[in-house]
Amino acid sequence: MARPTPLSGFPEWLPAGRIVEQHVLDTLRHTFELYGYAGIETRAVEPLDQLLRKGETSKEVYVLRRLQDDEAAAADHPEQGLGLHFDLTVPFARYVLENAGRLTFPFKRYQIQKVWRGERPQDGRFREFCQADIDVVGAGELPFHYEVEVALVVAEAFARLREIGMPAVQVLVNNRKVVEGFATGLGLTDVEAVLRSIDKLDKVGPEAVTEQLVSEAGATGDQAVALLALAELRGSDVVVVDQVRQLAAHHGADNALLESGLTELAQLLEAAAATAPGTLVADLKIARGLDYYTGSVYETVLVGHENLGSICSGGRYDSLASDGATTYPGVGISVGVSRLVARLLSAGLVTVTRAVPSAVLVAVTDETSRAESDRVAQALRARGIPVEVAPTAAKFGKQIRHADRRGIPYVWFPDAGEVKDIRSGEQVAADPGSWWPGEDDLMPRVIAAS
Amino acid sequence: MARPTPLSGFPEWLPAGRIVEQHVLDTLRHTFELYGYAGIETRAVEPLDQLLRKGETSKEVYVLRRLQDDEAAAADHPEQGLGLHFDLTVPFARYVLENAGRLTFPFKRYQIQKVWRGERPQDGRFREFCQADIDVVGAGELPFHYEVEVALVVAEAFARLREIGMPAVQVLVNNRKVVEGFATGLGLTDVEAVLRSIDKLDKVGPEAVTEQLVSEAGATGDQAVALLALAELRGSDVVVVDQVRQLAAHHGADNALLESGLTELAQLLEAAAATAPGTLVADLKIARGLDYYTGSVYETVLVGHENLGSICSGGRYDSLASDGATTYPGVGISVGVSRLVARLLSAGLVTVTRAVPSAVLVAVTDETSRAESDRVAQALRARGIPVEVAPTAAKFGKQIRHADRRGIPYVWFPDAGEVKDIRSGEQVAADPGSWWPGEDDLMPRVIAAS
Repeated sequence: MARPTPLSGFPEWLPAGRIVEQHVLDTLRHTFELYGYAGIETRAVEPLDQLLRKGETSKEVYVLRRLQDDEAAAADHPEQGLGLHFDLTVPFARYVLENAGRLTFPFKRYQIQKVWRGERPQDGRFREFCQADIDVVGAGELPFHYEVEVALVVAEAFARLREIGMPAVQVLVNNRKVVEGFATGLGLTDVEAVLRSIDKLDKVGPEAVTEQLVSEAGATGDQAVALLALAELRGSDVVVVDQVRQLAAHHGADNALLESGLTELAQLLEAAAATAPGTLVADLKIARGLDYYTGSVYETVLVGHENLGSICSGGRYDSLASDGATTYPGVGISVGVSRLVARLLSAGLVTVTRAVPSAVLVAVTDETSRAESDRVAQALRARGIPVEVAPTAAKFGKQIRHADRRGIPYVWFPDAGEVKDIRSGEQVAADPGSWWPGEDDLMPRVIAAS
Repeated sequence: MARPTPLSGFPEWLPAGRIVEQHVLDTLRHTFELYGYAGIETRAVEPLDQLLRKGETSKEVYVLRRLQDDEAAAADHPEQGLGLHFDLTVPFARYVLENAGRLTFPFKRYQIQKVWRGERPQDGRFREFCQADIDVVGAGELPFHYEVEVALVVAEAFARLREIGMPAVQVLVNNRKVVEGFATGLGLTDVEAVLRSIDKLDKVGPEAVTEQLVSEAGATGDQAVALLALAELRGSDVVVVDQVRQLAAHHGADNALLESGLTELAQLLEAAAATAPGTLVADLKIARGLDYYTGSVYETVLVGHENLGSICSGGRYDSLASDGATTYPGVGISVGVSRLVARLLSAGLVTVTRAVPSAVLVAVTDETSRAESDRVAQALRARGIPVEVAPTAAKFGKQIRHADRRGIPYVWFPDAGEVKDIRSGEQVAADPGSWWPGEDDLMPRVIAAS
């Protein structure tokens, strides 16, 4: 077999990279659990009719076929109607409906899994990638305060990741009611078209957005100017809420929906100022293309890496799912783990103290005494210390080089009853029943690259 | 949307079940790391030509197609040549070749991921399931002692799981060299056919195996009798090795290959007797159908649940991969996590203390004082205690019932500065900066069902 080459869009990490990713995943999981979110996983596949309910993603779905089923037999097999999920929201909505009678609401869940999209791979855009989602879903109703909570949960997780060298984030927030209220207050009716146009501001610039507002959303020149003025407002202080209010009053666009959205936006900013100052920024151009959002919307940029796009997005939706009798509103936010980890690695922002779990290599004097080395290793493992035993009874110099190549800090010599810190060269007598490598050396650690 | 129904062969767990699965996964990961195995993940897809190298599994492969690609366009897209992996060994072999220059050998890795097989679903046999694999792979050579290690690693992981109510396991071991040496010593040449026949002993019984040895492996009646006598030997004591030796001598089947296999089998049993007494059992009928095994082979049964089949299998292979210049021998073992967890849950062997992470529900007196409840929650979370805040400022009785339905043991009343253990009814004054729920209540725990 010739040496295989990587598959574009399907990222894989070397062991050191996986330690970084695992640290990010562990941090997310720990933070989610501190807020009471329960972990679930869903199967990788969903029926195609469910995956295709949202037209705009239909092209990206991978469909499954069993190899031995020919095309004619295809229709007879249920697999023919299955595709790989492209996000974790569609599967979660299905899970909630399927298990509604066995869940308690509001149901808070986190879900960390791979998703697949058959898109053209680009920097930070993959065909297979890992997402970490939290959602809160209610039966019939869901209080607004969860829209504050999900933003603060991810802000806290990202704050915890600062210590491994992750740059600061800005969680950009907006509220659909504000944009919708403002647009309808101006007299516009095609709110979807307004949202789609504003959503492109960063990509195409104000002039193109103005043109599009006129040509596609049916706006007059004045209405387009007003919408652009709204979209350009930004700030982490609640002052920005007053600026929107003044702008709306100036254009005669104030109404109850707008005011309701502004009240929510202000609450979100105030809560964030108290617990995560500087992290949340109201950004009135954040529109999120998807039409199911109905309240707060979120996007997150890595400061200094804005070109990466959002690493964490979501929002409030009044109808995550419905079984006819009950409608399930929700709010959720999704961390793009692969996108984040890929940048941490490629930009050289983080490093690991070693790429193997082992803190200690137990040397083997000769193969007949391997059992003695194994006993030392077992005594250390029983106390929670990761250990490997030398692969062969080579000369000690070679065994030390074996440890050095792996970054294993300690080599244990069972005959001498001594352990050597191969970084300093210091060698001391030690008892496997009591020796301790120290917290810094116990496990590989992820640290900021200097 | 009507209530969806589960998809046969694609298991999903409720939050309580996922806590059990997560505990199993955490225990496996921790044990693997104690032995120095580094975690990696590989993409879910592999090129079809790689997946189909082993003929016997070809029918089970799920092939991918992008939805918008019609059949005619299919050939132009690389996705057309991709399928979902059906195990973690094929992807690992590819990963080793692809990254050989950046890995250090012997390379010890663990890998915990979903795999997919389009088989007919049965009890314990799924179309999507989670596997946890460890493998050690060498460049050019790999010492025998790793064949001992991988068996002891999984034995230790299973021993750790006894405390949550997992039944005892028996790791059944054999050595390909023994069977092959014995068969060739008898004068048989089609060793593959011998292995395939013996592998079916439990399923079809000795008479059918005898018939098959004669009709398919070309054995005489006497040879078939000798092979059956070998296959029926079993024991955790090295005495069994001498029994094989005597049987071989009796039939004039002794040779160097057999003796080499017996020496290895004896070493494996002796090491196991020292560190995991009673767990490893030599079982001479264990053949493992796959033709790439060349030394030790392993299967694992859950005592009292033998009908479930093996929950952990593997073996030694002299050529995991080869790039022409270098051959990579390996030894690996794979835990069937979904099969194990499904049985733990369906047989009612384990239970969880609660299905949510939260140890505390902070009550809300009225919505205007929600911020005060949030502050208490934050103070507790900062000290590592999972907390949720009541969804609404309902009457306290209703808030307590909310906690009770979720199994949350404590309700905190910010106004009173008190916390109530809702199981005992005891309510005490408490400071969120110092109160501790106790280790047993901190996180949900998995415990043996009584």
